[in-house]
Amino acid sequence: MSAAHDNFGIQSPARNTQLNSMLLRLGYDIQFETLSDVPIITLLNVHPSRLGDLREPDELRTNPSVNVGTYEDNFGNRACRLVAPQGKIQLHGSTLIEDSGLPDEENIAAEEIPVCDLPTEVLPYLLNSRYCEVDLLSNTAAELFWNAPRGWNRVQTVCDWVHSKVTFGYEFSSPFRTALDVYTQRVGVCRDFQHLAIALCRALNIPARYATGYLGDIGVPVSPSPMDFSAWFEVYLGGRWWTFDARHNARRIGRVLMAVGRDATDCAITTSFATTKLLKFEVVTEEWKIGDRSPVARFG
Amino acid sequence: MSAAHDNFGIQSPARNTQLNSMLLRLGYDIQFETLSDVPIITLLNVHPSRLGDLREPDELRTNPSVNVGTYEDNFGNRACRLVAPQGKIQLHGSTLIEDSGLPDEENIAAEEIPVCDLPTEVLPYLLNSRYCEVDLLSNTAAELFWNAPRGWNRVQTVCDWVHSKVTFGYEFSSPFRTALDVYTQRVGVCRDFQHLAIALCRALNIPARYATGYLGDIGVPVSPSPMDFSAWFEVYLGGRWWTFDARHNARRIGRVLMAVGRDATDCAITTSFATTKLLKFEVVTEEWKIGDRSPVARFG
Amino acid sequence: MSAAHDNFGIQSPARNTQLNSMLLRLGYDIQFETLSDVPIITLLNVHPSRLGDLREPDELRTNPSVNVGTYEDNFGNRACRLVAPQGKIQLHGSTLIEDSGLPDEENIAAEEIPVCDLPTEVLPYLLNSRYCEVDLLSNTAAELFWNAPRGWNRVQTVCDWVHSKVTFGYEFSSPFRTALDVYTQRVGVCRDFQHLAIALCRALNIPARYATGYLGDIGVPVSPSPMDFSAWFEVYLGGRWWTFDARHNARRIGRVLMAVGRDATDCAITTSFATTKLLKFEVVTEEWKIGDRSPVARFG
Amino acid sequence: MSAAHDNFGIQSPARNTQLNSMLLRLGYDIQFETLSDVPIITLLNVHPSRLGDLREPDELRTNPSVNVGTYEDNFGNRACRLVAPQGKIQLHGSTLIEDSGLPDEENIAAEEIPVCDLPTEVLPYLLNSRYCEVDLLSNTAAELFWNAPRGWNRVQTVCDWVHSKVTFGYEFSSPFRTALDVYTQRVGVCRDFQHLAIALCRALNIPARYATGYLGDIGVPVSPSPMDFSAWFEVYLGGRWWTFDARHNARRIGRVLMAVGRDATDCAITTSFATTKLLKFEVVTEEWKIGDRSPVARFG
Repeated sequence: MSAAHDNFGIQSPARNTQLNSMLLRLGYDIQFETLSDVPIITLLNVHPSRLGDLREPDELRTNPSVNVGTYEDNFGNRACRLVAPQGKIQLHGSTLIEDSGLPDEENIAAEEIPVCDLPTEVLPYLLNSRYCEVDLLSNTAAELFWNAPRGWNRVQTVCDWVHSKVTFGYEFSSPFRTALDVYTQRVGVCRDFQHLAIALCRALNIPARYATGYLGDIGVPVSPSPMDFSAWFEVYLGGRWWTFDARHNARRIGRVLMAVGRDATDCAITTSFATTKLLKFEVVTEEWKIGDRSPVARFG
Repeated sequence: MSAAHDNFGIQSPARNTQLNSMLLRLGYDIQFETLSDVPIITLLNVHPSRLGDLREPDELRTNPSVNVGTYEDNFGNRACRLVAPQGKIQLHGSTLIEDSGLPDEENIAAEEIPVCDLPTEVLPYLLNSRYCEVDLLSNTAAELFWNAPRGWNRVQTVCDWVHSKVTFGYEFSSPFRTALDVYTQRVGVCRDFQHLAIALCRALNIPARYATGYLGDIGVPVSPSPMDFSAWFEVYLGGRWWTFDARHNARRIGRVLMAVGRDATDCAITTSFATTKLLKFEVVTEEWKIGDRSPVARFG
Repeated sequence: MSAAHDNFGIQSPARNTQLNSMLLRLGYDIQFETLSDVPIITLLNVHPSRLGDLREPDELRTNPSVNVGTYEDNFGNRACRLVAPQGKIQLHGSTLIEDSGLPDEENIAAEEIPVCDLPTEVLPYLLNSRYCEVDLLSNTAAELFWNAPRGWNRVQTVCDWVHSKVTFGYEFSSPFRTALDVYTQRVGVCRDFQHLAIALCRALNIPARYATGYLGDIGVPVSPSPMDFSAWFEVYLGGRWWTFDARHNARRIGRVLMAVGRDATDCAITTSFATTKLLKFEVVTEEWKIGDRSPVARFG
Repeated sequence: MSAAHDNFGIQSPARNTQLNSMLLRLGYDIQFETLSDVPIITLLNVHPSRLGDLREPDELRTNPSVNVGTYEDNFGNRACRLVAPQGKIQLHGSTLIEDSGLPDEENIAAEEIPVCDLPTEVLPYLLNSRYCEVDLLSNTAAELFWNAPRGWNRVQTVCDWVHSKVTFGYEFSSPFRTALDVYTQRVGVCRDFQHLAIALCRALNIPARYATGYLGDIGVPVSPSPMDFSAWFEVYLGGRWWTFDARHNARRIGRVLMAVGRDATDCAITTSFATTKLLKFEVVTEEWKIGDRSPVARFG
């Protein structure tokens, strides 16, 4: 499937030519405690579509050191596999990436592609998935958005609706909440906003997929909350994928994609196949200027 | 991904050498009425793993005649795409396939593969999907089956449990019922039995996937119900996929695989992207002996 | 609580003075088979508010004969209790009731009562119940109906919406379907229509309760389906309860109330406290003219 | 219904004769902000069954002062109604109650009453309710507990199971979580533990109802968490109601009942009929010795 990645449609910023170009320091430090050997899958690497922007290696390191296998998963993401031995384990990494420094691309003229003309690899992103019950929300989507202007504007209308109707709060975090739950409960965190927006878009025959990655407080007021990975989503309009974000509902600077998939199931940062206890979870995403003290000492 | 198919593990019967070898006549006649042009995806072809067994072409025909595009989907199935014009459309086809005439293969020595040793393409079949909420059933699975003998016997124990606890009835058919619903409601049709068994196997770290295809009344009393496509499931043990069927809970003769996937979402015989009305749905699966009048006239 | 019944607001037709007055023959024949002694609660009697209209006794009879205890339940219904001995049991009854022959009363001037002015006994009908998840549908109700004209018209607007959006079909019958399920699935039988309408009304602060009883094909074309008990609902407007029916969405003649409650849980015709198998279920509701052969021989 | 209260079965401690008798200071201070006049129902009073133990008046006070109507609800609780004017409102109260100082009563000889012998007013506590889906958990209950010793021990076995299987955490608080959700998610707060235990008991034909009230850290290590109202449940065995608590799974000292009902819907401390914002929520429950400075100044 690797040939398919080239038309993922992720923008390739014209490197080194942008006046706004910036460097971003990325890193994470995650620690688990386990009662037995636990197989773990990670999606902690930068997405292959951004490989050309990396200015330092992007490697998952573990402490204690264990074998880490790297592979490309079904969705084109760079995944790792490892077995955490009983006890404590640290997963950490740090890299430097060049970014256009420009907001998420926008094209209000981008059109909806009729289902019959969609590339076959895009079709799965019209279907039901664990957290996006398209079937259960299809009538609601039609009632709310069928008459909205087609194309980019319709997706933006969906984002506006979700953004205005759902209340954000870390206290609402639940790994079990589906798009329908978000629709009925009207509360959630990042991923919940995106799941609802994705399900509504799919119900309107607009391919939509979940995305996860780094999103620092760049060009916006610094959030008092601890940095975390973020979730957004992508829709397929006019022949390529575009970034939308029903949580922030803004064109943001400095997103660094890590993984895409049907929903949070496919994009989990870590998936453990036995009980683990999370001891630490720290993420760094910040603009990096030459001369900055590297946080590599901490995370690298 | 086509290289991956060879290790799907579907048995390749040693053709023409089996004493039990038989020919199966397969066919379908499906008719829809639509109010507008409706894009439709079909999974009406025999699975690529059985191509070598076909003794007649296996082509989807439509009346009126429309363009039909064929492609391999993400799961390795042979899918078709078409646009049904407003009005009535018939989808029909018929083919002849050679079959070993032997029951589903069985290997009670087949072992569970530790997650860390599973091929990467098998890993998605451990995760949540629309109709298989592994997360919500994982504790139940552990409580019921953790102490069961590992390997083939554990999967069989899951099938025995589902088969004995769930009541079959066509009147219980619902496209919305998930594995958890089957667990709580204890009623369902074919697909419901498989969804629950799949979710329970995945919760036990045994890869499991949904399968759909032809299953005639061969070697069993003829059912009074109209023939339909059937659903079963496959688990990955000892390095390959094996057929299980929580609905019939028996090693059957003459299954012809059409599609595999995470659950019924991925294996829908037809997926329509606008409202359609089903006018007719007939399926034929029967042993065919030389001299039999071909039903091609009806379906072909 | 018996004093409370007087203000249930059920109309008391001025008997014998209406030109349209008619007699209705009511009856039922229900047969179960059980594997053990099974306690059963029934709501098979006509509601106490209609006692004055009865022209024959209204008694539950059983075959074999068992002790039947009668009591008034928490909602003011006339309930019976019995223990079905292992084996087969028939529950049957027949009575004759006088009816105004007029359609369900209508008063488009009936106003919504502010919550602070509602009688306390009405307040529970604003809350969540098993099949009416007011909490999960409150935002949807507000989005759809907040700006509708207040009072009778708003309830009628809810009924119109439910009636037009949900498809009726006996094949959709499921004892597990809640109001939210009806909202998402858009299919159902009688009770499902009422559950959704009730939940929406409650979310709008309009007290609404489930009702069950006899509803024959009087003044309407005869339905080809077998007669069954029917479900409708009541809303509290202008100081009393009024009948609405989101399934038929029509003012009908000849409804005979049996039970009211929060939802179908409280109004189950029979509630069995162990497994039973239903062998027969027949209901009679028909206009009866002097000289008609009484069906008492069958059901009485 | 007031006559029915006498056999609620709540223990009547032989007052002034117990050596362990103690005084408990109870109080609450709840503040809301509203955008409009909001009708509110409260269950902030001590349950009528404890009236004889009060040593100070138990009155809901409001600031600003508004009319407060008191009534007995359908379940025998002492409820209040008021309309909060637009802006801020404080609901506060404080009282002193005498308590036996003894742990919850225990009687391991208390027997299950066959359904056919239960008082009619107890029957509703066998049925489904919003947060207790008896229908969906009945098979699970039978599979887990059918063979457990009958009576008190079976209820204790249910409590042990729920207590050991569900993880407590304030971060898991959700007003939408039902008994089935607790069963699948295995996390929750007080009310979630009780809802699951209640649903399981009802599925076993043991009447069970939700209870809410004061429960201080008396006779147990002081919890670092802020004091809150607590939830427990009652089961009907041997002809009366008994207290169980699947959250703490211990016979505790100093419970003061405020309300009972089918589930948390019926026992909400406050039910608001429009949007409110909670500004403050403080609860006091502590042993009070003569000479203690009264906290009345704060809450009374």
